[in-house]
Amino acid sequence: MEETPLDISELKLRLAGGDEELTAFCAEVHFADIADWLQDLSEEECWRVFSVLDAEARAELLEYSEEAVRGPLVDRMSDSDFVGVLHEMQADDVADLLSMANEATTERVLRKIDFERAQGLRELIHYPPDTAGGLMTTEFATIGENTRIGDAIKEIKKQVQTDEGPSGEDGLGIWVVDEAGCPVGFVSDRDLLSHSIHDTVHEVMEGDIKTVTPEQDQEEVALVFRKYGMSEVPVVDRGGALIGVVAFEYAHEVLEEEASEDILRLVGTSPDEHTRLPVLTRVKHRLPMQPLTVLGGLLSAWVLDFALPEDTGSGVRILTYIPLIIGLAGNVGIQSSAVLVRALATGEVTPDRERAVFTSEVLVGTVIGLLCGIAAFVGAHLIEGELPFALAVGFAIAVSVTWASVLGSGITLLCPRVKIDPAIAAGPFLITVSDVSGSAIFVTVAHLLLTSG
Amino acid sequence: MEETPLDISELKLRLAGGDEELTAFCAEVHFADIADWLQDLSEEECWRVFSVLDAEARAELLEYSEEAVRGPLVDRMSDSDFVGVLHEMQADDVADLLSMANEATTERVLRKIDFERAQGLRELIHYPPDTAGGLMTTEFATIGENTRIGDAIKEIKKQVQTDEGPSGEDGLGIWVVDEAGCPVGFVSDRDLLSHSIHDTVHEVMEGDIKTVTPEQDQEEVALVFRKYGMSEVPVVDRGGALIGVVAFEYAHEVLEEEASEDILRLVGTSPDEHTRLPVLTRVKHRLPMQPLTVLGGLLSAWVLDFALPEDTGSGVRILTYIPLIIGLAGNVGIQSSAVLVRALATGEVTPDRERAVFTSEVLVGTVIGLLCGIAAFVGAHLIEGELPFALAVGFAIAVSVTWASVLGSGITLLCPRVKIDPAIAAGPFLITVSDVSGSAIFVTVAHLLLTSG
Repeated sequence: MEETPLDISELKLRLAGGDEELTAFCAEVHFADIADWLQDLSEEECWRVFSVLDAEARAELLEYSEEAVRGPLVDRMSDSDFVGVLHEMQADDVADLLSMANEATTERVLRKIDFERAQGLRELIHYPPDTAGGLMTTEFATIGENTRIGDAIKEIKKQVQTDEGPSGEDGLGIWVVDEAGCPVGFVSDRDLLSHSIHDTVHEVMEGDIKTVTPEQDQEEVALVFRKYGMSEVPVVDRGGALIGVVAFEYAHEVLEEEASEDILRLVGTSPDEHTRLPVLTRVKHRLPMQPLTVLGGLLSAWVLDFALPEDTGSGVRILTYIPLIIGLAGNVGIQSSAVLVRALATGEVTPDRERAVFTSEVLVGTVIGLLCGIAAFVGAHLIEGELPFALAVGFAIAVSVTWASVLGSGITLLCPRVKIDPAIAAGPFLITVSDVSGSAIFVTVAHLLLTSG
Repeated sequence: MEETPLDISELKLRLAGGDEELTAFCAEVHFADIADWLQDLSEEECWRVFSVLDAEARAELLEYSEEAVRGPLVDRMSDSDFVGVLHEMQADDVADLLSMANEATTERVLRKIDFERAQGLRELIHYPPDTAGGLMTTEFATIGENTRIGDAIKEIKKQVQTDEGPSGEDGLGIWVVDEAGCPVGFVSDRDLLSHSIHDTVHEVMEGDIKTVTPEQDQEEVALVFRKYGMSEVPVVDRGGALIGVVAFEYAHEVLEEEASEDILRLVGTSPDEHTRLPVLTRVKHRLPMQPLTVLGGLLSAWVLDFALPEDTGSGVRILTYIPLIIGLAGNVGIQSSAVLVRALATGEVTPDRERAVFTSEVLVGTVIGLLCGIAAFVGAHLIEGELPFALAVGFAIAVSVTWASVLGSGITLLCPRVKIDPAIAAGPFLITVSDVSGSAIFVTVAHLLLTSG
């Protein structure tokens, strides 16, 4: 098979050449690949690629692009370019795009397109993106249940041709509605093709359908897709009338998003975190859960102090801080590894990015380590009232937390090379290595400081 | 909307009545719901439901059922019933079903169906279920690229009608192949309906397609679905000829399976674990990772011993076992919570099952706690050589590990009631509560035992 061996270096090469060459190159590659590469190019370079494409290609590229790439492109487009692109997109994608532009732009653009379509879009924009309303398209084919198949085929042809947007793509089927506009069944185009033109739609339709309301959370929509194995889910208003359809593609995205969300939340970072964000943004995502761990660890130290005789030396008392270091190192290590496990699973981390990703993870860990060290210093000083002791605790915490991030990201990134599922190694194995080495490093560093000070 | 308020209690009621009543009830409910309910019925009751259905309904029910339900049903079916059901299913589903039956049954059944179809099925069965070959169907529509649309429509009608299996369902489109049978493009039925019958297929097809080979892992197939937003992925042999198609539904299942796998492996249990398995099976799934943590914890205790003066009393020495208890309690708590987070996300745990799930989780935790306690007792005895001390360590470990499973499952199950995302609470919050309370319980229990002994 003619597998495309093209990669980002090829695109960079073409960026140095003329516009025509660049356009020709883009025509050879799948837009999903180009969208992937744009993530590692400058804003200027992204714009260069985008601007040599025609409206249809631009629409495709935007659909496949991540928000970080899409945002600046949307901002730079002229109104007429924007309108051109919108004509090539399904309503749900248009709504996504418009929700990224500022209000003034949205209003200007909406005024330039077909009035009826603009009305539909205005409604779509106001639904939050993680609800059924935010996922649905308002452009879909419908048919009355008593229509004969022959008439239904003519009707669909007409609907496809008069529709403003490029309806009929994405493999959407046809919804059968009653007089009140409520969905009562579903037929695929294949059903129309394969039955006698004299049958009625009612006779061939799938009648057992499930609906959702526009306010329902995307997770619930994904459950409907999953449980009932549907290819598209109808969205109805309070009266039960059909107002939109969520296509199967969104189910993929939602299911993956929700699973990533679960995994990332479970380790206490934001579901929005990914490996291409700046170091400080990522620190910000992960930080909110550390104070709890610091407080818990300090609480443990305070409680365990009661188990020790009054005159216990600082060399032994340092042991009461072990829950603190194990908790923090565990958090930071598993955060690094979980972010990378998901990034490896979704194809976000490719071999050429490994080194950069590792460096940035360790940087994130170092910053968090420093901040935790400072917090531990303050806490230990309040509990023990001894400056050298508190300094030793703080410094030892900073060192061992940083070490935990080296372990967490290092072990996870090495896994694919030795053909081990990173999720297996990154779990209990990582935690154990981190617990043992973390507490050893902590006690050693603290002892060294205490005996030298 | 007429939401079905029917639940499993209704089904149980009908099970007490006559066959006709039961058949009528099943016709009113979605098969996905019945399949769900069967999981909580006895094998005898499942068979009762299954046996009152006709072949088409049986096929549907089997498609929606989990393996634990499907297996016994397949075993009990007569050969002629089996053949009847197979006629109602797509090739990929048939292959799944046959791979569950024993070889002799499979051979007998295959001989009773159309020769050509049986040949295709024989090939499908030998692919591992987690590869592209195991996911694909061999029944799909193809068309030559120079065919005119009008002829293509006739051709598709013919293919649908002569096909042995119920081809044309599932919203699959049409693959355009060259003379060598290699896929060169894709058209949807909508494309055929909406273009002039005089156009050629080549003019309207989507030409930029991605293929996979039957040996490729399901995770890679899911990545192709996800990255390129495809509704079906073609599978080709070494010569590039089209041999199968993976439908979008499988992408849902695979994406979710892979995400669940990642989350469950990350916490060191098997991806096959779920809340309906017997307690001891679940203990077996989770146990393999505990020895590592026990060894790591004992290693820490041994290392930390060096930080203590020779004459340190047992009340203080108990502190060196804190990494052990924190490691174990963390493992066990997060295993409980991760299993339940996924079970809640996939709809496996419904409100009526909460109590049973909680009890079984705590039982699992208690068994693991006992086993870890014994291991810790042995380890501590080897390190310290004092029987009462080792007994105290072992008992305290057993208590605090059991406590961790109560915390892990309790907090996770409470979350939906207080409208908190369980993944958020089950992560660092759970770990912190478990670290602090676990080490406090451990030290208290150990002290009580040491001072009383």
